[in-house]
Amino acid sequence: MQEFLSLAEFMADEAGKIIRTYFRQPFDVECKSDDSPVTRADREVEHRLCGIIARQRPEDGIHGEETGVKDSRSGYTWIFDPIDGTKQFAGGRPTFCILIALCYEGRPLMSIMDQPILGERWVGVKDRPTTFNGKIVRTRACKDLKTARLGMTSPRNLAFTETLAPLHEATQFIAWGGHAYGFAQLASGWLDVVMEKHFGPFDTVPVVPIVEGAGGIITDWSGNPPNLTGKGKVLAAGDPATHEQMLDFLRAHGEAQAAARAAGSSHRKAA
Amino acid sequence: MQEFLSLAEFMADEAGKIIRTYFRQPFDVECKSDDSPVTRADREVEHRLCGIIARQRPEDGIHGEETGVKDSRSGYTWIFDPIDGTKQFAGGRPTFCILIALCYEGRPLMSIMDQPILGERWVGVKDRPTTFNGKIVRTRACKDLKTARLGMTSPRNLAFTETLAPLHEATQFIAWGGHAYGFAQLASGWLDVVMEKHFGPFDTVPVVPIVEGAGGIITDWSGNPPNLTGKGKVLAAGDPATHEQMLDFLRAHGEAQAAARAAGSSHRKAA
Repeated sequence: MQEFLSLAEFMADEAGKIIRTYFRQPFDVECKSDDSPVTRADREVEHRLCGIIARQRPEDGIHGEETGVKDSRSGYTWIFDPIDGTKQFAGGRPTFCILIALCYEGRPLMSIMDQPILGERWVGVKDRPTTFNGKIVRTRACKDLKTARLGMTSPRNLAFTETLAPLHEATQFIAWGGHAYGFAQLASGWLDVVMEKHFGPFDTVPVVPIVEGAGGIITDWSGNPPNLTGKGKVLAAGDPATHEQMLDFLRAHGEAQAAARAAGSSHRKAA
Repeated sequence: MQEFLSLAEFMADEAGKIIRTYFRQPFDVECKSDDSPVTRADREVEHRLCGIIARQRPEDGIHGEETGVKDSRSGYTWIFDPIDGTKQFAGGRPTFCILIALCYEGRPLMSIMDQPILGERWVGVKDRPTTFNGKIVRTRACKDLKTARLGMTSPRNLAFTETLAPLHEATQFIAWGGHAYGFAQLASGWLDVVMEKHFGPFDTVPVVPIVEGAGGIITDWSGNPPNLTGKGKVLAAGDPATHEQMLDFLRAHGEAQAAARAAGSSHRKAA
């Protein structure tokens, strides 16, 4: 594991060097079909990381947001998203992340979430405590959803705009923006609940060891294990009580059912 | 002016020292009647800044979010909001700001927006170019709203949730979160349009010299001068073309009219 961790930390360092040269510089933003902006920085980092894996662990598989899938011959697969939170990146806000994760036979083994402008790094390893810049972190106890700080990237995470007002009522507040970075804040106990939609493997897999290693719970919006191979909605909470209350809320407002239908239809499409 | 600037920079330095000791530490969040969380850090900073003004410029007035109004005998009034963006602050995100501004006879003379974790400081002075960490910044040219990067704190800025989907369609993307920090990003050319609601004097006054000194436009949602004495909705754009297109959008969706009605009713209440 130490070999893998050192390699992942080296890759995060290299990615950060490239990203810092692009941050807040004039650059083109292209639109992909799913409307998320993809930058040259994104592709340059992914190219660099693929090169490192090809040289140092040629048998390992790769699953990158830009480069697609390279099959594994070792059982190990690296998953990365060079700039998660590209809109925040494009808007000059240092709340994007480099995400790097390693799976063995489809199960997440370890992951890094790195914020290269702030010099912040969360490391999650299966069955070990999550660390933030080398120090162990824990989620915050929060028994009542009314006192929970909720992180969510966009109101478009919700299936129904009618859910917005009751969600504000049900929680202490919603901190908008964030994407995967919100899960790191949950691991550190600064947020209590984080809800995202449209999370692919390059988002969900890196988030799982970090949340679980900090004592948090991560599921889909119906309380089932999160989808690690396709796109899905993800719900994380630092406290089991708040997690249960948020699942109740999502059911009561039809959001859980809508998320399950969307997941089912994307599953049928993939099949 | 140099004397005022030095004093304002000293106050921002002092505020930053206090705020850094509170950021990401466990702390209580209280709820005010308007539901924004106010922290002990907020009050400690405001107490410190009031003390500095009382000693160094005892004739000047003060308008603080926590301490209320102290009348001016010199014509000069200091306005400050120690932690603008308290939800981001509480969530562990360094995208809040210290706001300090100086007015003479009600007109904004100069202002500072400081992000004490990142070491970022924007300075705006009437009729002078805005600076970011000492370097002159300019807003970005953006002729077409379809290519505009929009910053907005929360979907609750809108009067109608039905406006949300067309707003996503009409712009390149919406970066959620931010509060006053978004206006600094507009001044630096990273965002093209920023829209906020419920901006009081301690938010709006500091934002005006920074946006205008960078070549941007700042108005209310109907294109009139922003409300510098009460609460109101604020629209800033880096390019006049995008500003005009966003005003058209807000009129077409009834948001401009709703904002004007809200401003009128709060005006009547105040009268």
